[in-house]
Amino acid sequence: MSHATPDTPDRVHLDNGGRAPWHPLARQAFEQALGDGWADPRRLHAEGRRAARLLDGAREAIAAVLGARTQEVHLTPSHTASLHSAVMSAAAGRRRAGTAIVASAVERSALLQAAAYAAGGGHPAGGGHPAGGAQPSRVDPVPVDRLGRVDADAMIAAVQAPGVALAALQHANGEVGTLQPVEAVHDAARTAGVPLLVDAGASVGHVAVPAAWDLLAADPADWGGPAGVGVLAVRQRVRTAPVGPEDEDPWAPGGVSVPLAFAAAVALQAVEADRAAQETRRRQLVERLRAEVSRIPDVEVVGDPDGRLPHVATFSFLYVDGEALVTELDRHGFAVGSGSACTSSTLEPSHVLAAMGVLTHGNVRIALDRTTTADEVDRFCAVLPGAVARVREMLGVGGL
Amino acid sequence: MSHATPDTPDRVHLDNGGRAPWHPLARQAFEQALGDGWADPRRLHAEGRRAARLLDGAREAIAAVLGARTQEVHLTPSHTASLHSAVMSAAAGRRRAGTAIVASAVERSALLQAAAYAAGGGHPAGGGHPAGGAQPSRVDPVPVDRLGRVDADAMIAAVQAPGVALAALQHANGEVGTLQPVEAVHDAARTAGVPLLVDAGASVGHVAVPAAWDLLAADPADWGGPAGVGVLAVRQRVRTAPVGPEDEDPWAPGGVSVPLAFAAAVALQAVEADRAAQETRRRQLVERLRAEVSRIPDVEVVGDPDGRLPHVATFSFLYVDGEALVTELDRHGFAVGSGSACTSSTLEPSHVLAAMGVLTHGNVRIALDRTTTADEVDRFCAVLPGAVARVREMLGVGGL
Repeated sequence: MSHATPDTPDRVHLDNGGRAPWHPLARQAFEQALGDGWADPRRLHAEGRRAARLLDGAREAIAAVLGARTQEVHLTPSHTASLHSAVMSAAAGRRRAGTAIVASAVERSALLQAAAYAAGGGHPAGGGHPAGGAQPSRVDPVPVDRLGRVDADAMIAAVQAPGVALAALQHANGEVGTLQPVEAVHDAARTAGVPLLVDAGASVGHVAVPAAWDLLAADPADWGGPAGVGVLAVRQRVRTAPVGPEDEDPWAPGGVSVPLAFAAAVALQAVEADRAAQETRRRQLVERLRAEVSRIPDVEVVGDPDGRLPHVATFSFLYVDGEALVTELDRHGFAVGSGSACTSSTLEPSHVLAAMGVLTHGNVRIALDRTTTADEVDRFCAVLPGAVARVREMLGVGGL
Repeated sequence: MSHATPDTPDRVHLDNGGRAPWHPLARQAFEQALGDGWADPRRLHAEGRRAARLLDGAREAIAAVLGARTQEVHLTPSHTASLHSAVMSAAAGRRRAGTAIVASAVERSALLQAAAYAAGGGHPAGGGHPAGGAQPSRVDPVPVDRLGRVDADAMIAAVQAPGVALAALQHANGEVGTLQPVEAVHDAARTAGVPLLVDAGASVGHVAVPAAWDLLAADPADWGGPAGVGVLAVRQRVRTAPVGPEDEDPWAPGGVSVPLAFAAAVALQAVEADRAAQETRRRQLVERLRAEVSRIPDVEVVGDPDGRLPHVATFSFLYVDGEALVTELDRHGFAVGSGSACTSSTLEPSHVLAAMGVLTHGNVRIALDRTTTADEVDRFCAVLPGAVARVREMLGVGGL
């Protein structure tokens, strides 16, 4: 998507993973819902009931896409909140069965941090052991291969061990695009009686929604809906126990914004309507991008070349600082993401890339929006080699 | 505010406490921020930095109104989330000093539930004692008088007792309007070294913001900003410890919607600009309303007649079911709230009215919007006596 701004007349935004511009229909839906659904959906009067109907309608529409029942779909304040609540409430609901949590090593930080917290290694200031059991508990990160795919046999063995409260496997890795073997792991988990949490935050809206889950988290901000609302589906058969102070809505204490929820649902319906066409189109662009970038010296094109998200492409450049490369590309009008660059004070290398055993620095992630054009990808491919060279020169490794 | 709908051509919405229609400038601000601030404010590129600037600007504007430093202002997913986080993190930060929590009996349910959870009486499924100490802990609800005002002497004595982690006193009660003696309690708490949490969710935007607080929670949805975002200010001197899984933003894991935050800030600036005039105007309307309603037989006009919020009026009718009265008024085009009517399955009487020792049933709460007209109040006054009589007749007490 091109943005015309005074300083950068032809801006190209290629960092649409986890936060994409709103789908135009989401904006329309928000406007409509703000008029009809500003009231508190818990109130009894006409305005309250109208807001409640919009909220129920949003959950129903999302449920239809996810292959869930409406009452299985909960709205949360964010994708991070979905993952926190899913892990903590499922672990608390299964305390009698065990306290171990099995998760791939490349799950999102939010999920791994919730697992550490639920399994008793939580934030020290938080005061210890929220799961409360006397049994020792732990998180078992299951290794991945060099493409970022979890070792299915290892994960299945871990899930089948005694004392497992919860297993977690993402549908696809949002940093590198690799799809995970959720069906095989779900089969094994089901046999073992262990619920499987599937983080589909990077995939819903881009590829078909998997059926292999007991809890499924999805991210409106990733599919062209708003940030500020998350989605968590929990099969009715799964036993959960809310963690935290009591509230009418344990998944979003105080409730969520009804207009945001409605906009999220409308965006999801809209992107599902032409998902297959967009999948094909963007897969071709990503293949072109991966092929072009692989010609740059000392680059590693990251993630599975085939079993992958159609819109994500990731590269790691030797002798390059990721933050410097993002900044250099930004100066030339291209917004990209990086697994090794963020604004937080602790610039830690990506745990995903580290788990894969690939270069953790000099990393660039591209996530194409539905509006990204072939021309924009071509222009990026034309600019990238020079940007890499300039950053290498700044770091004094230009001659390598 | 009148809404023209097919069935009710001249709808009057008088339930604006906790959820008011958006201020027109908030809608404009949202639109602008959606264009400029849709990106993830944690990203390094121009779009991310622009979103970060909008978010910082929102916090700065809110801080200026609250009399806080920008870095003291945190955004949360909702007012309920603000209260939960404030109680739990302040209690966790003070574990060495004590584990008791002192709160007035008329605090919001969300605050009392968080206090019960933090003090060890949490949700049983959640697994016991999140504060983690071995010391026995408790919540001390401090009684209120018949006007709903906390017994300041009793609260001060409770705050000065040993082992108190946190004190909580609302600025004003949102159900009945009574202002609380926050200055006196804050003085005593400061002397005792106990932080005071002030829930100003019903007052900010309607009366002057108090200076007497260590933690202050305020509610955008109440002042004409959006739901889906909350505000929590924490003085830098207050020691807090985040409770829950680690996240870059412990007050809103995963972050909040930048456009919502910006709209909340703009709405606050807008309502502050003519707050004094609106306070005078709405206080006169509320006085008229209280006088008119007091003429209806067997009614209790609730809350302090003088030291009160300017826009809230509450009545309890003998021989009337609150839910039935809300529904009857709704049929006649008037949306009102009720302390004894909600859509949740557990229709419990209001703990606020119970603590005051007044009628807990047959309750109606009016909260005037800035757009509510004198004519609308007059029309409500004309319709209310008949509605009360009809509900009494339905319940078979018409002759009383």
